[in-house]
Amino acid sequence: MDPVLFLDYCGVAVFAAAGALAASRKQMDIIGFLFLAGATGVGGGTFRDLIMGVPVFWMVNHDYVLIWTATAILVFFTAHRVESRYKLLLWLDALGLAAFAVMGAAKGLSVTGSPIIAIIMGVLTATFGGILRDLLAGEPSVLLRPEVYITAAVGGASVYTLGELAGMPLLFCQLGGFLVAFVIRGGAIRFGWR
Amino acid sequence: MDPVLFLDYCGVAVFAAAGALAASRKQMDIIGFLFLAGATGVGGGTFRDLIMGVPVFWMVNHDYVLIWTATAILVFFTAHRVESRYKLLLWLDALGLAAFAVMGAAKGLSVTGSPIIAIIMGVLTATFGGILRDLLAGEPSVLLRPEVYITAAVGGASVYTLGELAGMPLLFCQLGGFLVAFVIRGGAIRFGWR
Amino acid sequence: MDPVLFLDYCGVAVFAAAGALAASRKQMDIIGFLFLAGATGVGGGTFRDLIMGVPVFWMVNHDYVLIWTATAILVFFTAHRVESRYKLLLWLDALGLAAFAVMGAAKGLSVTGSPIIAIIMGVLTATFGGILRDLLAGEPSVLLRPEVYITAAVGGASVYTLGELAGMPLLFCQLGGFLVAFVIRGGAIRFGWR
Repeated sequence: MDPVLFLDYCGVAVFAAAGALAASRKQMDIIGFLFLAGATGVGGGTFRDLIMGVPVFWMVNHDYVLIWTATAILVFFTAHRVESRYKLLLWLDALGLAAFAVMGAAKGLSVTGSPIIAIIMGVLTATFGGILRDLLAGEPSVLLRPEVYITAAVGGASVYTLGELAGMPLLFCQLGGFLVAFVIRGGAIRFGWR
Repeated sequence: MDPVLFLDYCGVAVFAAAGALAASRKQMDIIGFLFLAGATGVGGGTFRDLIMGVPVFWMVNHDYVLIWTATAILVFFTAHRVESRYKLLLWLDALGLAAFAVMGAAKGLSVTGSPIIAIIMGVLTATFGGILRDLLAGEPSVLLRPEVYITAAVGGASVYTLGELAGMPLLFCQLGGFLVAFVIRGGAIRFGWR
Repeated sequence: MDPVLFLDYCGVAVFAAAGALAASRKQMDIIGFLFLAGATGVGGGTFRDLIMGVPVFWMVNHDYVLIWTATAILVFFTAHRVESRYKLLLWLDALGLAAFAVMGAAKGLSVTGSPIIAIIMGVLTATFGGILRDLLAGEPSVLLRPEVYITAAVGGASVYTLGELAGMPLLFCQLGGFLVAFVIRGGAIRFGWR
């Protein structure tokens, strides 16, 4: 399987899980889980594709729908066992943020060829799902928390984009971008980096 | 007149009325009525069309603009006579939800041919207008009320889609989908179904 | 330089500055400034272009990205010197509202040829950036303030559109629309017009 597609599937799954956890915190029913999992899982990429004027990715490849559906159902039956759902939500959000910062930048660069647009698309893809989730679930926006959030997406998207422009191996750029974004955001969650 | 188009016009009118009632509750001026009526009336369908990559329906057929404008003006001059504007808003919202669950699924199925996407488009069309209205009007989101909401849209969109796939007469599918969605949501409003 | 393009650049700059001031009020970091400046500066026009089905303007002309970036950085280093950031934000918002009401109507009219759609596009372009800014920054929505807001956009967009339809000189229509919108909104801010 294409490693980029795999990373994208993982991003949708962890963001969908974060959305489902938000539904769990709001004591929604299974349909609420599916709704928030979908909005969080594919919201950022949908927005990215609309702005770039390309077909929305999950309308082309329906596997994404299965991924968010399966994730929502799984979380529905297991979320009550989790000790701190908000903490888990934040960590899943961090994983999704890192995956999508890279994916969004990669798609932005391949579609437009512009590094500036690539970084913006990475940031947009990485952050919009979480913003939408908090908005729909009535949670305080992750954007307004004191610790760094968007910065992690900027870091990951920039590392990927600059790496690809410099002609580095793709897998290296992807891994580098992912790790930079995840370490920055993880440090923010774990150590309160601002 | 095409019954599907008629149902769509009715959906826009009742959602526009619900939006105008939200404007009335916030004591907005006539322009505020027009704005919220438009956003609520065509917000869901706009989002659906953007995601499917087809021209936005009210940009193609300007009658929709007249419908939401006329509705907003009508509500502006009569809303003060209504005893409980929020209750009326909820019932209009239920009518619009049922009409749009069917309409959205029908358009989704005819454009993409995929039953899964059809149901998602029905749900999106049916719920997004109300979500947008509450967001713009600063009302507590209808999504977060304890009674079922999205479930009604899923029910209506599924009945329509499965009916059409099974080769049932179109009018039958439309009526069936509408009634299922309206009864579920109506039961939620009237009897507090969760 | 084309006066219409100049007006558009100014609109993006003042809206970006208003977004950056909102970031400043929330004590965000430089990345937060860039994010809110971008969302506010180009959010309305992005939405307008998506609905009309034309390429998003800042994806075609990257100068807009430079404008919002430079504005955000400038505000980041100077905002603390401003006595009342919220008052300045409101006045910048009024300038942007007036510029975008004209720009949005002009683009709407040239793309669709319909005066009704032109006015709607003017209103949408003028108001959506501010709505998005308040939503993302967690500020009380400018839409729900008691003084007139959308009305100013309607006034400016209508004057421009009717003027162009009447065959008046373009610069005259632009100036007229801008002034009508700015005077209405300015009166609302200064004298509390409702």
